[in-house]
Amino acid sequence: MTGERVAPPRDLQATMEPTLDAALRADAPASEGEVGLVAPQRAVFPNGLALTNGQRLAPVEAAYETYGALAPDKSNVILLCHALSGGAHAAGRHHPDERKPGWWDLYIGPNKALDTNRFFIICVNVLASPYGTTSPLSIDPATGEPYHLNFPPIRVADWVELERMVLESLGIERLYAVVGGSTGGMRAFEWAVRYPERVRKALVIAAPARSSPMVIALNHIQRQTILMGLEHGGLDGANRGLMLARMLAHISYLSEHALWSKFGRDTTPETEFWSVLFQVESYLEYKATTFLQRFDPFCYLYITRAMDAFDLGYTYGGGDLRRAMERVQATMRFVSFTSDWLFPPSGQQEAVEVLQSLGKRADHVVIDSPWGHDSFLVERVKPQLKPVLKEFLERDADGVAGV
Amino acid sequence: MTGERVAPPRDLQATMEPTLDAALRADAPASEGEVGLVAPQRAVFPNGLALTNGQRLAPVEAAYETYGALAPDKSNVILLCHALSGGAHAAGRHHPDERKPGWWDLYIGPNKALDTNRFFIICVNVLASPYGTTSPLSIDPATGEPYHLNFPPIRVADWVELERMVLESLGIERLYAVVGGSTGGMRAFEWAVRYPERVRKALVIAAPARSSPMVIALNHIQRQTILMGLEHGGLDGANRGLMLARMLAHISYLSEHALWSKFGRDTTPETEFWSVLFQVESYLEYKATTFLQRFDPFCYLYITRAMDAFDLGYTYGGGDLRRAMERVQATMRFVSFTSDWLFPPSGQQEAVEVLQSLGKRADHVVIDSPWGHDSFLVERVKPQLKPVLKEFLERDADGVAGV
Repeated sequence: MTGERVAPPRDLQATMEPTLDAALRADAPASEGEVGLVAPQRAVFPNGLALTNGQRLAPVEAAYETYGALAPDKSNVILLCHALSGGAHAAGRHHPDERKPGWWDLYIGPNKALDTNRFFIICVNVLASPYGTTSPLSIDPATGEPYHLNFPPIRVADWVELERMVLESLGIERLYAVVGGSTGGMRAFEWAVRYPERVRKALVIAAPARSSPMVIALNHIQRQTILMGLEHGGLDGANRGLMLARMLAHISYLSEHALWSKFGRDTTPETEFWSVLFQVESYLEYKATTFLQRFDPFCYLYITRAMDAFDLGYTYGGGDLRRAMERVQATMRFVSFTSDWLFPPSGQQEAVEVLQSLGKRADHVVIDSPWGHDSFLVERVKPQLKPVLKEFLERDADGVAGV
Repeated sequence: MTGERVAPPRDLQATMEPTLDAALRADAPASEGEVGLVAPQRAVFPNGLALTNGQRLAPVEAAYETYGALAPDKSNVILLCHALSGGAHAAGRHHPDERKPGWWDLYIGPNKALDTNRFFIICVNVLASPYGTTSPLSIDPATGEPYHLNFPPIRVADWVELERMVLESLGIERLYAVVGGSTGGMRAFEWAVRYPERVRKALVIAAPARSSPMVIALNHIQRQTILMGLEHGGLDGANRGLMLARMLAHISYLSEHALWSKFGRDTTPETEFWSVLFQVESYLEYKATTFLQRFDPFCYLYITRAMDAFDLGYTYGGGDLRRAMERVQATMRFVSFTSDWLFPPSGQQEAVEVLQSLGKRADHVVIDSPWGHDSFLVERVKPQLKPVLKEFLERDADGVAGV
């Protein structure tokens, strides 16, 4: 049942640096620690943000978190960019009883891939997300009501701008590295192109230089389902639409293999002919219900539209990816997963080939994983992914004043 | 942009018969003709059909079409099985002005893969489909109203039973071959297992021995979208739900490569922020609108549920695929397409390996096509697919009294 598992093409494997091979063979690393309790933080910008589309959104506030200590010379900053449904809470716990730690706790902490003994890691919740940053749920000062569909259209570049503003509010001008997966990878990539002189390294996981028509098509169906629900059933309908959108998104993060190995064709006892006969249906409904408790249909509309519009060649090269890539100064690494059909390795390979042809420092590591797009969040992929992250972040880090 | 194109694994290629290689190298075949005008036909069964679930559905009628002439000894019959949204109209035209011929006109006609100079081809519209066979749109004699959601649940086996009844009404007991793609391939496969002594050859295109959890998951979302529309918006809502379901299904029939090559990231002039910015969105909406004109949400619910339940090992082997496959007497060929992510080659390979291990005559031809699940309907795949079909159907056909 692993027919979709494809070994990385030889030419991709060949782009792996020799130092990475060494890292993969290294002795057991120092044992990992936890970041422990962390506090949500908040930056407020009363004058707001000039958006890509020309509008000004004001006021704006941003939720963020940090892990590790900022070096006195501020040379050890890693900006971590979360994915579509993530938020600023990337590691540790807000209180001792919190059931699950932040979304990338696997990789953030003492001796982890993003080593808090060395680096100061900051993660900013994006605009339009429901986790504390200004969003369609915020009050529109013009009406005193939530923005909802009156929120302005946003782009990945607007997310980057808000991250820049938060960093500047902390006196940080330059990043040692920017790291992200999926839509977070889009931001990491956009940082390297938009602010080349501010980024020393960029690590882009499972994200290409532009969203594919497959991504746009899947997002279109998800948005239309929410909008159909809203039209016919008001907020209840929009919420059910969000559940269905999430189910579709969730499938696109998994793989044929993952679905077979998790569910196969198992049936469920709580049979209802149209809604649940099979475990996979029951699972999707359950996951969508929990998603509904933590997300919002309006936010989902805006974030997916920002994702669709993502196209670095268009934004920075007048439609020419090569011209856009000429701007890059950072050392870049792209990471892909063989069974990722949402952002398949071919998309990242396109970007790497252009960068390499321009003499830029860029490589592409394709990890053989059957767990689909979500591989970067899956614990059992950690033995493969951790050294790929750690080697990239720790290589040539001599000038970094880790504390 | 063809990263998802995967060469057939060596062991699959090795299963290709030497005669097929010969066919692929053969001289240009005789020139193809057309079947011309055809008439829809109809069989009525007042006593109806005993369904798998124990209910009797009565009365039942079936729409069907035939191409070519039935040999006096009835030895030249090919039962062709249509896919989810297809019908009995597989070739030719109902009237000279009909815009498009039947759905598999590419492969049916004089000197085509299904050669009407030799074979008598029959295609029966399935139960629950809106093209003339009894369906949720038919009048329920108990109420005088359309069945809609009071239609009984159906299975692929019920489709096979109706095909059997139509064939018997024409005095046909045995099939020279049964051929089908996608859900049509499921029927072809089920015929070979359910009625082993009646089937000489079975040609199963892009269909496995059981629906995967990926198929079930995609169908679940599609059905829930229709049901959400129905709940909140009545028939209008159900129709919009059907459009969204079709868009998702349509994507699952295509591939990353197909979407890039058809649309890329092209935008459209008729911009509306939430509904259409990109060509691929405009295309999906257009295709869904035309689908709505020819299909029905209730029918869609029933047909996809039949698809989910398909599992030959469960039905004929008490859960054991091997035991089910022991029944097969036909010579079988399975055809897959490398970029098909809905019914990937691994599913067909599973079936072939079991059949081969039992000493059955079965092979698996994996066609390297970037056009996804729909490859068997795509004209440019014809040079690859036609010889694979034709060689299988014409090999060892000496006893067939073609007219």
